[in-house]
Amino acid sequence: MRDVAIIGLGQTPVAEHWDSSLRDLATQALREALTDADISDLSSVDAMYVGNAYGAPITSQSQLGALLADLGGLRGIEAYTVEAAEASGAAALRTGYLAVASGAVETAIVLGIEKATDRVGADHLRARGVSLDADYEAIHGATLPALAGLLMRRYMHEYGIELSAFENFSANAHLNGSTNANAMFRNKLKPGAFAKAPSVAAPVSLFDGAPDADGAAAVILTSADRAGDLVPQPIHIAASAVATDALALHDRADLLTLMAAQRAAQKAYAAAGIGPDDLDLFELHDAFTVISALTLEATGFAARGEGWKLAQESLIGREGSIPLSTFGGLKSRGNPIGATGIYQAVEATLQLRGAAGANQVADARIAMIQNLGGLGSTAITHILRA
Amino acid sequence: MRDVAIIGLGQTPVAEHWDSSLRDLATQALREALTDADISDLSSVDAMYVGNAYGAPITSQSQLGALLADLGGLRGIEAYTVEAAEASGAAALRTGYLAVASGAVETAIVLGIEKATDRVGADHLRARGVSLDADYEAIHGATLPALAGLLMRRYMHEYGIELSAFENFSANAHLNGSTNANAMFRNKLKPGAFAKAPSVAAPVSLFDGAPDADGAAAVILTSADRAGDLVPQPIHIAASAVATDALALHDRADLLTLMAAQRAAQKAYAAAGIGPDDLDLFELHDAFTVISALTLEATGFAARGEGWKLAQESLIGREGSIPLSTFGGLKSRGNPIGATGIYQAVEATLQLRGAAGANQVADARIAMIQNLGGLGSTAITHILRA
Repeated sequence: MRDVAIIGLGQTPVAEHWDSSLRDLATQALREALTDADISDLSSVDAMYVGNAYGAPITSQSQLGALLADLGGLRGIEAYTVEAAEASGAAALRTGYLAVASGAVETAIVLGIEKATDRVGADHLRARGVSLDADYEAIHGATLPALAGLLMRRYMHEYGIELSAFENFSANAHLNGSTNANAMFRNKLKPGAFAKAPSVAAPVSLFDGAPDADGAAAVILTSADRAGDLVPQPIHIAASAVATDALALHDRADLLTLMAAQRAAQKAYAAAGIGPDDLDLFELHDAFTVISALTLEATGFAARGEGWKLAQESLIGREGSIPLSTFGGLKSRGNPIGATGIYQAVEATLQLRGAAGANQVADARIAMIQNLGGLGSTAITHILRA
Repeated sequence: MRDVAIIGLGQTPVAEHWDSSLRDLATQALREALTDADISDLSSVDAMYVGNAYGAPITSQSQLGALLADLGGLRGIEAYTVEAAEASGAAALRTGYLAVASGAVETAIVLGIEKATDRVGADHLRARGVSLDADYEAIHGATLPALAGLLMRRYMHEYGIELSAFENFSANAHLNGSTNANAMFRNKLKPGAFAKAPSVAAPVSLFDGAPDADGAAAVILTSADRAGDLVPQPIHIAASAVATDALALHDRADLLTLMAAQRAAQKAYAAAGIGPDDLDLFELHDAFTVISALTLEATGFAARGEGWKLAQESLIGREGSIPLSTFGGLKSRGNPIGATGIYQAVEATLQLRGAAGANQVADARIAMIQNLGGLGSTAITHILRA
């Protein structure tokens, strides 16, 4: 199996892009990545894997591989779409990794794209529900925030903690997002604001949940052998791992263990030959603050029931022992659903290049990114190395 | 890159399965494939890649990887969905191939599943349109049969042929389907029926177009090295290739050249070190008879404008020089959209095992399968070898 490296990246701002279509956003990120990798001869690109979750139900467009390759000036190349709900971006990255690692493909673009705001209100909620269990959750009116609320309440009950225990996950994300020009929300969380936030699905409030958004991000992969000749700072993919769990929350063996996140992280640690202590930063899937707490437990940073303490002890800031959401995470940078996994890859790559500007984690050498589908039904973990 | 082999297969009948859900069909094909590969220890399965096109827009269910792995008794394994409209099945096969070829995955299930009949009438047509260009085709009311009609009319005009020139593609499919217990339509085409068939989108008539249907099919892949120890007759994947073209028909460089089909076939021939003359059978994407004619031209069996002649000269039957649609193809076996590519793989594997029963092509050693998205916007070609 060949080693694989990231040699280019691109991203659009994450926002409600009322004035840009799915096509506009995708081609913008694509062109930026090609420029970043200094690729002017498009015939050197062999394949494109698109991470997208809601193309069909929200934008009435599937077969995005062929469409976006064509619009990106790459008509004819290998291209198709990869979907794992909110983890679609990372699933596309996994596919690009497999293609290059196998030797079948020399240079691949992995593009994450979501235009989530083309439907609004009840119409949006209905479309958005397809990542839940259709027959046992969504059909009863359950939504992702509603289920996250149940999970959060259980976590608080089980471990005897208050809502305020989660505040710093959100505050940290907003602080980091405040200096990210591509972030959807660049406001810092004001003191007292978390406690007073309007409820979304109690106990989940406005500052616990990440906003659905539009955006596109791309990375370009090639074999590690070639990468060094092409760009000054290739970033190596040291591990790529996927695991799954029951789709419906009520089917889980243990509500308070994100089994897929645990399994994907363990596989990734083993492949990279490292443990959590070796990581310089972790772009986790902070769609809800309770998911951040549970993810830290699943990935070996905290014992069961103690993930929330990392936020309390301020270990998750840029100068802490495990910096999280260093560009604002899903919470502040925004959650362009099927593109989120690629934003994570772009941000971690910027960190490892030392090109993160005001968001730089000092001496970042090893980063983990983890993208979740649903409330952890799919978990895809990559470890990147400078 | 490791060689990859097929060691197991399963399929449900193709039909309008009003009494079975997406879950029922998927798990039925999955179990059959596991049994066929003699896998009783489920922990030996590492990954599952699901080919599906309309889970979200028709059955309101995405994230099928996690869901179907769980329902199949494989909770926890790597799993996600791959989509390329009607070529989703083959795109999933491509992904499974890359995973095993790379060495990252030892044993993978590739499952194609579609439950297309959960929406009917205008609702179905609207959902079905997502594989076209949403902004320039579907929005104007274009449908796949309507566009196929335009293409067929152009073909007839350009080459000065009548509708009857296409009849034998349909007759051959129905003849082969008549002995396939899993086929949707097992009736032979009666003399005169083709000429009198009701129009769908002139000149496309009822016997030109393949019926959308429900179905699930699965193949199990492992490295060729291991395969020989596991099953008596592993079937080798000698080539796997993907190519794309413009999504919208009006954007094609040449309406009457299926560029993606041509390119994917050329890549596959080169990888396998063979040419069209070496093939013992060809499971092509006969969604419309004109697509069969154009495919034969694109894949090197006929010169431009002469694909229709192969049908006239009866070269496409089971004893002809290039047997097509040996189990009935999309036309008679039926088109369970995102599963179709896996049905093609299952059928070709049965042929190469010499286990095709009444549908057997004598001495079949090398088979090509080609799955198309839309009217050839995505083309995915695999060559299998006994």
